[in-house]
Amino acid sequence: MSKGLPKRSENYSEWYNEIVKRADLAENSAVRGCMVIKPYGYAIWEKMQRALDDMFKETGHQNAYFPLFVPKSFLEKEEEHAEGFAKECAVVTHYRLKANPDGKGLIVDPTAKLEEELIIRPTSETVIWNAYKGWIQSWRDLPLLINQWANVVRWEMRTRIFLRTAEFLWQEGHTAHATEAEAVAETETMLGVYATFAEEWMAMPVFRGLKSPSERFAGAVETYCIEALMQDGKALQAGTSHFLGQNFAKSFDVQFTNKEGKLESPWATSWGVSTRLMGALIMAHSDDNGLVLPPRLAPIQVVIVPIYKSPEDLAAISEKINPIYEALKAAGVSVKYDDDDKQRSGWKFAEYELRGVPIRLGMGMRDLENGTIEVARRDTLSKESHSIEGIVEHCQALLAEIQINIYQKALNFREENTFKVETRDEFEAQIEKGGFVFAHWDGTAETEEIIKQATKATIRCIPLDAPNEDGIDVYSGKPSNKRVIFARAY
Amino acid sequence: MSKGLPKRSENYSEWYNEIVKRADLAENSAVRGCMVIKPYGYAIWEKMQRALDDMFKETGHQNAYFPLFVPKSFLEKEEEHAEGFAKECAVVTHYRLKANPDGKGLIVDPTAKLEEELIIRPTSETVIWNAYKGWIQSWRDLPLLINQWANVVRWEMRTRIFLRTAEFLWQEGHTAHATEAEAVAETETMLGVYATFAEEWMAMPVFRGLKSPSERFAGAVETYCIEALMQDGKALQAGTSHFLGQNFAKSFDVQFTNKEGKLESPWATSWGVSTRLMGALIMAHSDDNGLVLPPRLAPIQVVIVPIYKSPEDLAAISEKINPIYEALKAAGVSVKYDDDDKQRSGWKFAEYELRGVPIRLGMGMRDLENGTIEVARRDTLSKESHSIEGIVEHCQALLAEIQINIYQKALNFREENTFKVETRDEFEAQIEKGGFVFAHWDGTAETEEIIKQATKATIRCIPLDAPNEDGIDVYSGKPSNKRVIFARAY
Repeated sequence: MSKGLPKRSENYSEWYNEIVKRADLAENSAVRGCMVIKPYGYAIWEKMQRALDDMFKETGHQNAYFPLFVPKSFLEKEEEHAEGFAKECAVVTHYRLKANPDGKGLIVDPTAKLEEELIIRPTSETVIWNAYKGWIQSWRDLPLLINQWANVVRWEMRTRIFLRTAEFLWQEGHTAHATEAEAVAETETMLGVYATFAEEWMAMPVFRGLKSPSERFAGAVETYCIEALMQDGKALQAGTSHFLGQNFAKSFDVQFTNKEGKLESPWATSWGVSTRLMGALIMAHSDDNGLVLPPRLAPIQVVIVPIYKSPEDLAAISEKINPIYEALKAAGVSVKYDDDDKQRSGWKFAEYELRGVPIRLGMGMRDLENGTIEVARRDTLSKESHSIEGIVEHCQALLAEIQINIYQKALNFREENTFKVETRDEFEAQIEKGGFVFAHWDGTAETEEIIKQATKATIRCIPLDAPNEDGIDVYSGKPSNKRVIFARAY
Repeated sequence: MSKGLPKRSENYSEWYNEIVKRADLAENSAVRGCMVIKPYGYAIWEKMQRALDDMFKETGHQNAYFPLFVPKSFLEKEEEHAEGFAKECAVVTHYRLKANPDGKGLIVDPTAKLEEELIIRPTSETVIWNAYKGWIQSWRDLPLLINQWANVVRWEMRTRIFLRTAEFLWQEGHTAHATEAEAVAETETMLGVYATFAEEWMAMPVFRGLKSPSERFAGAVETYCIEALMQDGKALQAGTSHFLGQNFAKSFDVQFTNKEGKLESPWATSWGVSTRLMGALIMAHSDDNGLVLPPRLAPIQVVIVPIYKSPEDLAAISEKINPIYEALKAAGVSVKYDDDDKQRSGWKFAEYELRGVPIRLGMGMRDLENGTIEVARRDTLSKESHSIEGIVEHCQALLAEIQINIYQKALNFREENTFKVETRDEFEAQIEKGGFVFAHWDGTAETEEIIKQATKATIRCIPLDAPNEDGIDVYSGKPSNKRVIFARAY
């Protein structure tokens, strides 16, 4: 199966597409830009969802559900927001089809035209703040900490499976607070949740920072983000957390009575991550043999494959495997015993390698005699023979080790591909080679745009922990007091 | 808070609406027919989802995700299906808005018209069978057992929160099988899963049966359903499982090579339950004091309310409550300790009653001295004083008892409201009073329609376990060999 997978070094883009396809993660659908997430891909997404949802709940959030449809007039209410999303809106104009009077099939019934067009939500600030108007009256109603798991649609012209699709799945948090400070703290808390998830679950190191004004979410006062580095040297924005000020509260006339009995507008945040993270996960860790999954997000953490010739051999191996299988399960490990007789063990080895299963245990007749089992690691592709004694504890320890190793590998890669540059020549040469480039920026949108046009690099973020440091903008030569992170990005 | 809740006997419909509102379950949104599911309502839905999802996985199904959009040409492919859904389709015709050149706001950009209109999925048979064409080649690919959790849109003219909304949340299973017998068995298995969920989780007894041909799902060969009785004597269809024959396989050119090397069309099923179950849950058990939740679906199973005057009293009570709270939590009980100082205990009592929390524990200073705690049951509205000793075990036993009691109460109600009738007069009189009416039917769509027009009653189902019994149709006088269940329905 894994034969013929393109090499990353030769055709990174094709390598990515082929992994998505051959590891059975997703496929393009008949509708332009929309994807079908296949069961194995969806199982990874479910693991992501569960971990994130637990973290949201631990930080005091509750889930709710708001309508798919945004009336056009809602979108118009916050001007920047409207401008930002108008160009990529799927618009519902009619609510009925009818039999084609002139022939076969169905046509849109012209008499069933909506009075006001409905937009498929590209994000839900407007619908949610319209609802919050009824939910928020007093300081006692705040903070309001809500999250929604939903599908959204943005009619992108250039789509790429998982990374940029017309419809995608995501969560969007929408909170309301009595004070600006509380809302800013919430924005930062949720950025922290995303960073923790990226690093501890996805094993993917991220830089945390602020977007430059031109890259802010449409309608936000400040956009925080986490940025990860992919193996081709391009950056990927993995999550954003927005401080929305009082923009949406004011656009939707939401006010509350504070403790002193005065009317005020609440302060807002919104934050989201999407199925784009599936793309990040694939591109951060996988190799020329296929997918590499961090154990904490692997639907199957350990697969056990019997190596046998006769049914009697299989029966003997299965008898030995069963208690190991049960013990792994009891220890909370996601384990699969693949005794399917339709495929040979060599085919299975390749298949689970392609699918990124962290540990493969193999048992043949010699192992059976020796009381051993073969342990293969997906991350290092190494194999060892281990005694059956203590195999459960060994697998548990190994899963933890693999999780750390994958993270460390990605961190090393990022460190090797993060550079400081001082001049325009250095900047352009490095951007061409790839990686994160720390450079001085004069803080103007003009220079940012010139750099983007010249190099296709964008400011990924202004790092939160960037030290003050006097310097000179690599393009304009104007003074700067901080380095920002540039890269070409997905 | 609970003052002024309309009585079921006086205005059932208003009673339902007020419970939905005051128990903070959901509200109507600004978009006609669409609802906002509020956090407390969504928490119940999440519990339903988790229970159902576990049951789907135990029966071998995997989750996946398919696009929101159905190309119009897909809908046209299966004729009956197209006919059944065409009248209630939300249609996307454009993919961009632009600034209004003649004034303020946004307008649909006429240059961004889609070549082919897209329908927001009312159900996903067509999109999924189009994908299955690529997934099914050989008998080795079967059975294919897939489920999807998603939102769907059906542009209903008369909407009712949870019961009939333009957008709703649901799950839809779509399976493919090598033989007709396997597909029929799957259809029945999933009906059994739904019945088990309704009875063991929702505490709601259901009749299982087949729909009459006129009530079948558009495109199905046979529709199985579960039917429950609401407290106003009306029936509610709580779940359906369809045997689709080879209709969709043939419409979408899906074929597989069987073990003998010959091409065949696979056999299909689809099955779904939706947020409509939230409406059923409310109407099946709640009373004039508010919501009554079965413990297995209650977001809060036990609430503890301190009754105090001074901060010192509260501190003393909290000290006593803390270990009870922790022990309940450790025992797997969803417990909340409400020591919020902003509300008085009397207000809290009414509030948790309204929200249907199965057990309320109250502790005042006298309880503290006596080493007792007040235990109030939501289902019976009874109270008792219990020793703090063994209170955790008592709550656990009580939760189990309440679950059974609620079911038994609903079962008794159904038995008292299920009737056999022999004549047209009896039939009409009973339908007017409400309940399930077992009557003979001649098996024709004509008689079914006459009865519907005359009485608003429909055939809820032809019970699976109905004995053969010679009789005479209550309307036509023609012979019948089986009783079917009639009722007015939601």
